[in-house]
Amino acid sequence: MVGPKAAGQDGSGLALVLERLSTRFADRLQTGKTLREQHGHTTTYIPNQPPDGVFFPETLEEVQEAVRLCAAFGVPVIPYGVGSSLEGHVNAPSGGICFDMSRMKRVIAVNQEDLDCKVEAGITREELNRYLRDTGLFFPIDPGADASLGGMAATRASGTNAVRYGTMRENVLSVTAVLSDGSAVTTARRARKSSAGYDLTRLFVGSEGTLGVITSLTLRLYGIPPAISGGVCPFPDVEAACNAVITTIQMGIPVARMELVNALGMRAIKLHSGLDYPESPFLFVEFHGTEAGVAEQAEMFGEIAAEFSGGPFTWATAAEERRKLWKARHDFFWAGFALRPGSKGLATDVCVPISRLAECIVETERDIAHTGLIAPIVGHVGDGNFHVTVLMDMDDPEEVARAEAFVSRLNQRALSMDGTCTGEHGIGQGKRRYLVEEHGQTGIGVMRAVKQALDPAGIMNPGKIFAGEGA
Amino acid sequence: MVGPKAAGQDGSGLALVLERLSTRFADRLQTGKTLREQHGHTTTYIPNQPPDGVFFPETLEEVQEAVRLCAAFGVPVIPYGVGSSLEGHVNAPSGGICFDMSRMKRVIAVNQEDLDCKVEAGITREELNRYLRDTGLFFPIDPGADASLGGMAATRASGTNAVRYGTMRENVLSVTAVLSDGSAVTTARRARKSSAGYDLTRLFVGSEGTLGVITSLTLRLYGIPPAISGGVCPFPDVEAACNAVITTIQMGIPVARMELVNALGMRAIKLHSGLDYPESPFLFVEFHGTEAGVAEQAEMFGEIAAEFSGGPFTWATAAEERRKLWKARHDFFWAGFALRPGSKGLATDVCVPISRLAECIVETERDIAHTGLIAPIVGHVGDGNFHVTVLMDMDDPEEVARAEAFVSRLNQRALSMDGTCTGEHGIGQGKRRYLVEEHGQTGIGVMRAVKQALDPAGIMNPGKIFAGEGA
Repeated sequence: MVGPKAAGQDGSGLALVLERLSTRFADRLQTGKTLREQHGHTTTYIPNQPPDGVFFPETLEEVQEAVRLCAAFGVPVIPYGVGSSLEGHVNAPSGGICFDMSRMKRVIAVNQEDLDCKVEAGITREELNRYLRDTGLFFPIDPGADASLGGMAATRASGTNAVRYGTMRENVLSVTAVLSDGSAVTTARRARKSSAGYDLTRLFVGSEGTLGVITSLTLRLYGIPPAISGGVCPFPDVEAACNAVITTIQMGIPVARMELVNALGMRAIKLHSGLDYPESPFLFVEFHGTEAGVAEQAEMFGEIAAEFSGGPFTWATAAEERRKLWKARHDFFWAGFALRPGSKGLATDVCVPISRLAECIVETERDIAHTGLIAPIVGHVGDGNFHVTVLMDMDDPEEVARAEAFVSRLNQRALSMDGTCTGEHGIGQGKRRYLVEEHGQTGIGVMRAVKQALDPAGIMNPGKIFAGEGA
Repeated sequence: MVGPKAAGQDGSGLALVLERLSTRFADRLQTGKTLREQHGHTTTYIPNQPPDGVFFPETLEEVQEAVRLCAAFGVPVIPYGVGSSLEGHVNAPSGGICFDMSRMKRVIAVNQEDLDCKVEAGITREELNRYLRDTGLFFPIDPGADASLGGMAATRASGTNAVRYGTMRENVLSVTAVLSDGSAVTTARRARKSSAGYDLTRLFVGSEGTLGVITSLTLRLYGIPPAISGGVCPFPDVEAACNAVITTIQMGIPVARMELVNALGMRAIKLHSGLDYPESPFLFVEFHGTEAGVAEQAEMFGEIAAEFSGGPFTWATAAEERRKLWKARHDFFWAGFALRPGSKGLATDVCVPISRLAECIVETERDIAHTGLIAPIVGHVGDGNFHVTVLMDMDDPEEVARAEAFVSRLNQRALSMDGTCTGEHGIGQGKRRYLVEEHGQTGIGVMRAVKQALDPAGIMNPGKIFAGEGA
């Protein structure tokens, strides 16, 4: 239905688009091989498919102008944030123009009274939080990487804080996006809720650039909690840790972060960060609230952990100590490589109802052992979401095939437990076939109908989300 | 673009559909005038446009069968919950078949460990909460009326608890809906979050039956909080009350309910419920949490109220007393009529960023006084959402015109403050022209393109959301 347009590939239309962009924007269009490869290849194991050119827009109007030009010649448009995607979202299987949003980083407004702000799509979450520092507010969504807010919206990112603050789905109030015909749509106004028509905001959040280029966003902000405390707690096995998580969630304790690292993951963190913890499964937790509230939450969690033979708890209340702890957790993707220097990381994620979490992780650990892979696990377990990073020798096709078969089984397992093939990484190129299994032909048909309606020529980030397109 | 089909109106196709439904479903197809009128006319001031027949399906497959039949003859399909819509959502401007979901009330599953449940679309929120009573869980969304969950999802309802628990947008995990071709789509699985493709759940939440008939839903549940406390607090004026609200939200106090009733509204409640409160603006508040948490929240709120000259606070911690208090608030729609027996209520709602709330309500009160209308105000003010019920003599066209002009100004005012023309009632028939003003031609164009893609013949609830159709 939605076919990839090879219009950019016969050279004629593409050459014209490159020439016109170059004339109009001078060195804000780049075509050097290294830069193009950097913009296709990111933190993914998926082979590099560079775009034909990289354009650095500075305004909404420039994005519109360039999209119109691409549309006129059927040349693909690939939006780019910082390239921290794990599933090949920024590859250019049909060639085309990469729209690098890194020059659109303005904070347009901070409405302190309304706890919201409007930013351009290229600003990263850490840049935004630095900007906000003096206001007492912060933006909580934290996928690990210092990703751009536009990219986070496009992939419906979440991360460590989602168990308390939700994901990008809950925290984007509105986006402005440039559609495939160059028109710009603003999906909502600044009211906290609305019943006014279709939920266009949620349609663009998670659309992975296939419906339009997000140029700015209005985001919810939160007051920095007066008290934060957190720590780490070992458990005898993964099942005990998961059961402590389930009980915590069921009791309604408003934990802000609750991360599982399995024994192999702790070994990676130890090798990478030099933190001296035993190699058993750990929960990293954090509580946000008032002094009294945080103390109450921490005490309740401690009791639950003890009930499942967890402990001893190591508390880190000082900000510096906490920062170190979470840096170790955030560096996990990089820490993995300490287990096998020189390898490539195939980072995949699934999400299941939390009642199935222990079972799903235990079966997955068994599968990893049985398959003979090196693959640590971490998880945003409060949401039922976990990640496996398979450390592969990409030069060994047999091992790559084994890893891919494992990932396929992992997805089947999650789907069989009423879960999803991706909690937060998105579909990109890597998970297209699992999407079909997850949503069935009717669900995919609805998605394709929407795509076809908004991008009839198929120029917006082709080859992503939908199978059978592009390479 | 999406035109209303009059196919059901020439009599031939319609007659066939009625005949076949009657043959197949016997008295589960009803065509009596009174029943049809009941199913068009509800709690709205909008004139009655009854459907041609009312069908009572009992299963998903029956809904599919009947939709296929309607589709074959171009006969409109109008989904119906309990008819508590305020904007004419269940009217049948092009005739057609009303799908009354009241025989689809099963609770399909309660997953206590995952804090979710799956229900058929016809069950009401009170029925669900009675069913859940022994589990210690509850579904918090409370729009006032004892609406059906399917209807609440279709209009993206919210209500008094939304400031803490969110709206239907945040609390529907998945829906199953029958599309215009009779196929059934399930929008998501049971995982708490997912980045797997377009957000079909949020596409159907708020679609007002124009994309499909919702037949079942998976909903988030919450543990009944160990402690609840609440009360009422008078303020010298609306502005002071709003400023107390803004400060409470900004301080991050997790208030569960925070409702404003203006002086005229308190007069209506007093007349209707016999509660003896002074006729000044009041905030009704409720706090959910642990004993310590609730006490802390209440104390902080009390200090804020005093800062804005509010008080004295009347606490209602006993369940019975609390119930009475909230019943008075929930009966507000009916209480209004005590101010003008025999009148019709034009209930409208808007929602603005909370920083603009005081200004918006003060200007609106001034407008009401200037226009000479009787129109009390209540609001879910923690969200920036408020309602005005204009009590009209429908036999006085001049007064009706005055009321409509007032509503038009109210919507302009909300839009000019970056707000929305409806926080929770939906567009239906009554707010179609404001939707265009709110989203502009590009936004409406995207909505129409989606509608056209999923319902090319325009049989699903025609004449709703989009202007220039039906009516």
